[in-house]
Amino acid sequence: MSSHKTNMRLKLPIVCIILELILIILFGTLVVYDKETDAKKWHQVKEKHNESDVENDFYYRYPSFQDVHVMIFVGFGFLMTFLKRYGFGSVGFNFLIASFSLQWATLMQGFLHGMKGGKIHIGVESMINADFCTGSVLISFGAVLGKTSPVQLMVMAVFEVTLFAVNEFVILSVLEAKDAGGSMTIHTFGAYFGLVVTRILFRPNLEKSKQRNGSVYHSDIFAMIGTIFLWMFWPSFNSAVTAHGDDQHRTVMNTYYSLASCTLATFAVSSLVNGEGKLDMVHIQNAALAGGVAVGTAGEMMLTPFGSMIVGFLAGTISTLGFRYLTPLLEKKLKIQDTCGVHNLHGMPGILGAIVGAITASVATADIYGEGMQDVFPEVYSGASTASWQGIRQAISLAVTLGFALVGGIIVGFILKLPIFGSPPDTICFEDEIYWEVPEEDQGHEEMTAIQTEEVEKALNA
Amino acid sequence: MSSHKTNMRLKLPIVCIILELILIILFGTLVVYDKETDAKKWHQVKEKHNESDVENDFYYRYPSFQDVHVMIFVGFGFLMTFLKRYGFGSVGFNFLIASFSLQWATLMQGFLHGMKGGKIHIGVESMINADFCTGSVLISFGAVLGKTSPVQLMVMAVFEVTLFAVNEFVILSVLEAKDAGGSMTIHTFGAYFGLVVTRILFRPNLEKSKQRNGSVYHSDIFAMIGTIFLWMFWPSFNSAVTAHGDDQHRTVMNTYYSLASCTLATFAVSSLVNGEGKLDMVHIQNAALAGGVAVGTAGEMMLTPFGSMIVGFLAGTISTLGFRYLTPLLEKKLKIQDTCGVHNLHGMPGILGAIVGAITASVATADIYGEGMQDVFPEVYSGASTASWQGIRQAISLAVTLGFALVGGIIVGFILKLPIFGSPPDTICFEDEIYWEVPEEDQGHEEMTAIQTEEVEKALNA
Amino acid sequence: MSSHKTNMRLKLPIVCIILELILIILFGTLVVYDKETDAKKWHQVKEKHNESDVENDFYYRYPSFQDVHVMIFVGFGFLMTFLKRYGFGSVGFNFLIASFSLQWATLMQGFLHGMKGGKIHIGVESMINADFCTGSVLISFGAVLGKTSPVQLMVMAVFEVTLFAVNEFVILSVLEAKDAGGSMTIHTFGAYFGLVVTRILFRPNLEKSKQRNGSVYHSDIFAMIGTIFLWMFWPSFNSAVTAHGDDQHRTVMNTYYSLASCTLATFAVSSLVNGEGKLDMVHIQNAALAGGVAVGTAGEMMLTPFGSMIVGFLAGTISTLGFRYLTPLLEKKLKIQDTCGVHNLHGMPGILGAIVGAITASVATADIYGEGMQDVFPEVYSGASTASWQGIRQAISLAVTLGFALVGGIIVGFILKLPIFGSPPDTICFEDEIYWEVPEEDQGHEEMTAIQTEEVEKALNA
Repeated sequence: MSSHKTNMRLKLPIVCIILELILIILFGTLVVYDKETDAKKWHQVKEKHNESDVENDFYYRYPSFQDVHVMIFVGFGFLMTFLKRYGFGSVGFNFLIASFSLQWATLMQGFLHGMKGGKIHIGVESMINADFCTGSVLISFGAVLGKTSPVQLMVMAVFEVTLFAVNEFVILSVLEAKDAGGSMTIHTFGAYFGLVVTRILFRPNLEKSKQRNGSVYHSDIFAMIGTIFLWMFWPSFNSAVTAHGDDQHRTVMNTYYSLASCTLATFAVSSLVNGEGKLDMVHIQNAALAGGVAVGTAGEMMLTPFGSMIVGFLAGTISTLGFRYLTPLLEKKLKIQDTCGVHNLHGMPGILGAIVGAITASVATADIYGEGMQDVFPEVYSGASTASWQGIRQAISLAVTLGFALVGGIIVGFILKLPIFGSPPDTICFEDEIYWEVPEEDQGHEEMTAIQTEEVEKALNA
Repeated sequence: MSSHKTNMRLKLPIVCIILELILIILFGTLVVYDKETDAKKWHQVKEKHNESDVENDFYYRYPSFQDVHVMIFVGFGFLMTFLKRYGFGSVGFNFLIASFSLQWATLMQGFLHGMKGGKIHIGVESMINADFCTGSVLISFGAVLGKTSPVQLMVMAVFEVTLFAVNEFVILSVLEAKDAGGSMTIHTFGAYFGLVVTRILFRPNLEKSKQRNGSVYHSDIFAMIGTIFLWMFWPSFNSAVTAHGDDQHRTVMNTYYSLASCTLATFAVSSLVNGEGKLDMVHIQNAALAGGVAVGTAGEMMLTPFGSMIVGFLAGTISTLGFRYLTPLLEKKLKIQDTCGVHNLHGMPGILGAIVGAITASVATADIYGEGMQDVFPEVYSGASTASWQGIRQAISLAVTLGFALVGGIIVGFILKLPIFGSPPDTICFEDEIYWEVPEEDQGHEEMTAIQTEEVEKALNA
Repeated sequence: MSSHKTNMRLKLPIVCIILELILIILFGTLVVYDKETDAKKWHQVKEKHNESDVENDFYYRYPSFQDVHVMIFVGFGFLMTFLKRYGFGSVGFNFLIASFSLQWATLMQGFLHGMKGGKIHIGVESMINADFCTGSVLISFGAVLGKTSPVQLMVMAVFEVTLFAVNEFVILSVLEAKDAGGSMTIHTFGAYFGLVVTRILFRPNLEKSKQRNGSVYHSDIFAMIGTIFLWMFWPSFNSAVTAHGDDQHRTVMNTYYSLASCTLATFAVSSLVNGEGKLDMVHIQNAALAGGVAVGTAGEMMLTPFGSMIVGFLAGTISTLGFRYLTPLLEKKLKIQDTCGVHNLHGMPGILGAIVGAITASVATADIYGEGMQDVFPEVYSGASTASWQGIRQAISLAVTLGFALVGGIIVGFILKLPIFGSPPDTICFEDEIYWEVPEEDQGHEEMTAIQTEEVEKALNA
């Protein structure tokens, strides 16, 4: 791939402008405020039901939305700044593709489950769902980080958002599974999609960029900004679209304890697998978050803090072990070059979360849930389904998600291989210089050598 | 100006202590809790209207307030840390003048529109408004960043807050214009006020500090912390003081889509105007935010996501073009040394926002707004005005704001020229060493040369 | 202490895993959802009282909880990254011990004031209280920062959380004092406990690590992330568990003005006590926060913004003077090596806050509080106590807190001296290399010399 011209001067503007124009036209044609956002309709609702403004869904969900928003833009963006020379690309491309994806997701999700009278009705809940879908794209971004051009990333986002919406529709609307925090729809889907894409884009000579595929002291601290914000706000993530009242409350609490337990497991295992008992920042930055992923499905259920802590402990353990033992193996044996180790943070814990969700659903009883069953498992409440059958639906949903991710990833991977997208040569991966103006008097990391600078020039004008 | 003594040992403590004592005395004399903050009064309100605590305005606005607060202290503070040797000054002086301004603004805004029975009544809404006024001072700070002493900044804040409150009173109470997100009152006012001040403080020999007027790799990443927090929380900024219910909900949504669209425009244009198609961090850090500024007036109106995306796209485009082409021109032709390019982020997008607001207001109809008209345009709802006349009021408000900013900026600029305030010499601008104890073993940026250190000493004791 | 083996490979995993298993077992045995978190019970409550979901305590407190959560993990974590070579340890160990403490605190606080029918009932308020207790451990961590192994920190947390819960029970439940923002329970307790521990752990040869006991330029900016998030969210901290309605509203406002005033005092005094009038980052990072500590008790009372500003001004002044004059004295005369100066930020301002609380309580009248007296001083409202007696209770509570902190600190200090916990030798304090894998090509700070690296190896395998 090293012969492609990486100069973005025409490609990136054209892609961004055309996509944004398409978005604007489609929004103009199809999108309207929902009844809680529209001036006229909300006042009609209020009058009809004699309701207070505080019953507007905005007040139930906006604080959670903002926390999710922070996770998407600060959390994912800074988590990836751990690379010593890819801080601009990490936080910058994260910013770009997230800004695109949330618009595109509004449309794709709207087509599939927000249409009324030929229009897509949007409000705070659709904004949260758009951010969720975006999160899935950013997970895949983590797998290919440093090895793709911004144009490739935009193209990936176009397809991945679309596939996400279809998979989500099948799982939530057809199979009527529950997955409020997205163990399946967001994490499993995003991770395996990204892993397949990075497999298709396999670079046999990537070790030529090895010296930049790592951190420096301060880049690791920048990454901790991402980690900590993700960790803190994960309870909001899992609860953002659950039902009002006890459901949001319970999901928050389950996630809180799962994460705390996961963090202890991560520190324990990280120290254990190191020859000198030293902690590895890569584990702390990533595996400590697996507890949030792993209660993404069951968080709203009556999992109890006890159950959540067990799940979190397992998630932190398998995630850390994955970083230590599985990632090198995947690279060596399966040629999967997973820059951020998304398989360990999102892949395996996502599957764990799906399984925990299926089991927890299958043991739900009217005695435990009472009238709350209506919110968590409406099908079981109404008698249209049983708890066991709900569990089976959850399990089928996991299989469906993996199927969509794998097939979708293969197709999109091959599309991204087209030479027109300007991906970097193997010698200049994990390097901001190629797509960004980098300040000359560069104190934050080692200077590029004259040879490297020449290579960048060559790639730009190849 | 290079002969002024920059030692702050007496000046800064005197200014801070005297101002704080004045504030304390005035608060003691004039300020009381409003009826939702006062123990006795709130319980009377609750009893009288048989209301729940959840109807206390605190629960409607506190999450938004905190987001605004983050924008003021983290957003503005870190956005300005892009300078390689002015990180302490950026985040530190931002902290100082914001802490002062919010107290002073409480009084000035209270005098003009919070007085009841000779007392200023304060609550969460006045706290948001105080933070808003502070934002305007911080915008002006961006124009003079690195070229002023903390004492000059405090003096500027005293006058600017006062003028802000007067301008706000004229626009919102006399002209009855709408400007919830402050396209005019905050952004246009703050930007042009700051630009005029920096023009009056023109330094012909500023190029002597040129080597420090730029970023290093990690300072650019610190700045992205500011950018991203501003970007994420802008929906809260524009909606923080709009009416409860659909108004806050709608403003958030309009801002969200405007910003997303703006970000794509910024990346597109940034790449397009660069010879090698490389992205410029200055653009991403700043122009991507213009979409929030540009819907500051119309955000609460029925602008629709479609309209918001068009506005955001325009804002990102003109802002990026401004950084690339207009800023150098303003410096060369008009002698306006605008350190952070506030003209591009707040000036032009603020004017755009005012115009969009005037147009959107002028086309408002009862059919679109229904009973919601009462919240957005009470004058139009009551029949005291028409939509077209509301639009004209909005346009007049823009002119008034520009007038206040220009005349105020000239006067304050000349006051700040007084030699007693200890501004840095032209050779030591953009330099923390002059007002801060900087750690000796300085790894984060290039060492000062022996000559520079000598110059700092000379300035301190001039 | 320099002969202890610092290799954590067995110690840390064993401690983390055993503690987490104990936590999981106890949670499984003892902890249940409270009636607002449980699916069945909340629906019963709703039906019984014909209530809306918005009355679930979750909506009153979750935004505050998240702000507190940010203070605990980002605020404390990053505040301590000011050390040039201890960024991983600061943010990482903060993460570890906070994750443990919040789980352990849930149990300890539950035993003492959350038990009903043999079970601990938990919800959003218990989560806030668990975070509060964690804050106290992190304050003590600040005193011993850089001089302790992670195992020592975990052991300290086990005991400190327990003692915290007992002290809190005595003060709030036995003495019926008020301390919503924890001037006594959190700040005074955490600070003096930590100071006594660090006294017991006195290292006579600590000056051998002197060259690392300081900041570099960028580490000071990282620390400002912590400072600013603490500062912004302190209003949420103090108000997080106060009564609904005016109480939360008022506490927020008092804290907001106290902090703003404190910041001006800090800048003034910092400049005044410096020979050249230069500002000291240590003061700005820490003393500017003292205003939040000092209204931790009185914040919910009718202190008025005027009173809050006076308190904040005093707090900033004594805190800055403490850093400049008292800390060196404490180290020299009393052998208290207080890495972060917690005596200045939490100790003295905590005592000030307790005194302000006692005075404010003692002057409470029915005329000022009206029916709101019931929320703030239920004992005075019901006639079971008088305002003066409430003031005396508050003062006694301060004495009790100091007693618990001093005695507890001595005992725990001696426990931590046991050689098995792997504390670093005097020559390698304030150094990440000893417990962390640190990236080799280290640009963010000076390289370790060959001799230092050898010392690390020696310590690991001593």
